[in-house]
Amino acid sequence: MMLLEELLKEAIERLPQSNVRNAMEYSLMAGGKRIRPVLLQETLKGYGIDPTLGNECACAIEMVHTYSLIHDDLPAMDNDDLRRGKPTCHKQFDEATAILAGDGLLTYAFSCILSSSIEASAKSACALILADMAGAAGMVLGQDLDMREQTGQTTWEDLKKIHRYKTGCLLSAPLMMGAIIAGHAEDVDTWHEIGEMIGLAFQIQDDILDVELTPEEFGKSNSDARNDKVTSVTVLGKADAEALMKELYANSIERISNIRGFDSDGMSSIVAGIQSRRK
Amino acid sequence: MMLLEELLKEAIERLPQSNVRNAMEYSLMAGGKRIRPVLLQETLKGYGIDPTLGNECACAIEMVHTYSLIHDDLPAMDNDDLRRGKPTCHKQFDEATAILAGDGLLTYAFSCILSSSIEASAKSACALILADMAGAAGMVLGQDLDMREQTGQTTWEDLKKIHRYKTGCLLSAPLMMGAIIAGHAEDVDTWHEIGEMIGLAFQIQDDILDVELTPEEFGKSNSDARNDKVTSVTVLGKADAEALMKELYANSIERISNIRGFDSDGMSSIVAGIQSRRK
Repeated sequence: MMLLEELLKEAIERLPQSNVRNAMEYSLMAGGKRIRPVLLQETLKGYGIDPTLGNECACAIEMVHTYSLIHDDLPAMDNDDLRRGKPTCHKQFDEATAILAGDGLLTYAFSCILSSSIEASAKSACALILADMAGAAGMVLGQDLDMREQTGQTTWEDLKKIHRYKTGCLLSAPLMMGAIIAGHAEDVDTWHEIGEMIGLAFQIQDDILDVELTPEEFGKSNSDARNDKVTSVTVLGKADAEALMKELYANSIERISNIRGFDSDGMSSIVAGIQSRRK
Repeated sequence: MMLLEELLKEAIERLPQSNVRNAMEYSLMAGGKRIRPVLLQETLKGYGIDPTLGNECACAIEMVHTYSLIHDDLPAMDNDDLRRGKPTCHKQFDEATAILAGDGLLTYAFSCILSSSIEASAKSACALILADMAGAAGMVLGQDLDMREQTGQTTWEDLKKIHRYKTGCLLSAPLMMGAIIAGHAEDVDTWHEIGEMIGLAFQIQDDILDVELTPEEFGKSNSDARNDKVTSVTVLGKADAEALMKELYANSIERISNIRGFDSDGMSSIVAGIQSRRK
């Protein structure tokens, strides 16, 4: 999705030049898999809708994802020095700038959606989905739970809850927004659940890659292993974690194929592609 | 505005219980002058509109204001221990929770506006105003400039720019939203300018109070004086700063009285009340 890189860069360049803009740009343009924008694009394609209608929403979700990484990497949180093979935002700039860059990206995500040319009620609905999925009943809650569940008492149920909020919500958002933009509000709840399944599978996969790869291969510090963190691999064992991951991906693809009026071929390939990632 | 306290509490209680929700509630319900909600209410009243139509937007602005205080108080920023006479969020909880509480409040502000019952295009417009005024072309830019302008080179022009973004933008937001909700989009730019004037006056007043009052009287640590910070008082001198502050408040009241179709009596009293505050 080369176009997305250009759209993101253009969006940042509409802001006044500043130190915080440089930091926002540094983290936003640092590569990354752009999975969420691709999911939004494929949702629109599957409904037979022009995928460029989702451009602003795609940029917005990627901004929110990037803000969450910047804040998660802070010394008070995961204290990571590397992200996508480069110094984290607070290492490249400073801590105060990184906090503000995260705040700026989160806020600008809403500007992008709300100044887009999609129709007012769809615009409102998409921005509300983003706020709900990203906030203290979504991703922020997941991060809060994650910080507090680091004892030996953590069960698989606890971990699933963390992943559901921390990863699932923001993977659901592009699918839900796609349904809204395509005029299929009746499918929003289904996409929400599919996003949570993909999110859980994705997180288990991250845990597996975290124990398999060196930091250089993985592109970020293996802070989880370093911090003796409880993960799906430590709780379930690697073999069971791997089996569950495969089952979740397969179930997601099946549920997608059952959505009426949705051509699922493209989306199934995307999910299969996510499943075969090595970082 | 007692009702606002209840509305804010109810809004927080709609979120799932969590550590981060407790921190959000702690800072949001810690009192404060609630100036921005009052400004929104008075804008609607001046236009002859039911002020309760602005309830969700008023809550949202207060959430964004509170998030900005939580993040500004962090050790990496102003490193303040006291806010409104109570421990700051990161002192009462911890730094990671304070970062997340700020993120949660900022995000939830958009949920509140976007799930309100006002009409879709007004809703979108109000949320866009909030995003633009709070973000990297508004308040976040102001905070960034403020962090970086701490040398002896700072001029009055530099300081005005900082205050315009850091304080003015979020004081303009409720006035601009009020005009939108009342169906007077043509007045939005005027209210933006009035908000910036009030913001500058407010900030000069803060600088004056900062040198006049003890931390106990002022309700927060005098971090500016402690950090030898450049302020309007150090740049202009106290007498000139005071004269300018009075002029700005007087000019704001005059501009408000010139808005056609707007009954300015209530708003003028509010501005006069702000001018006479002692903390």
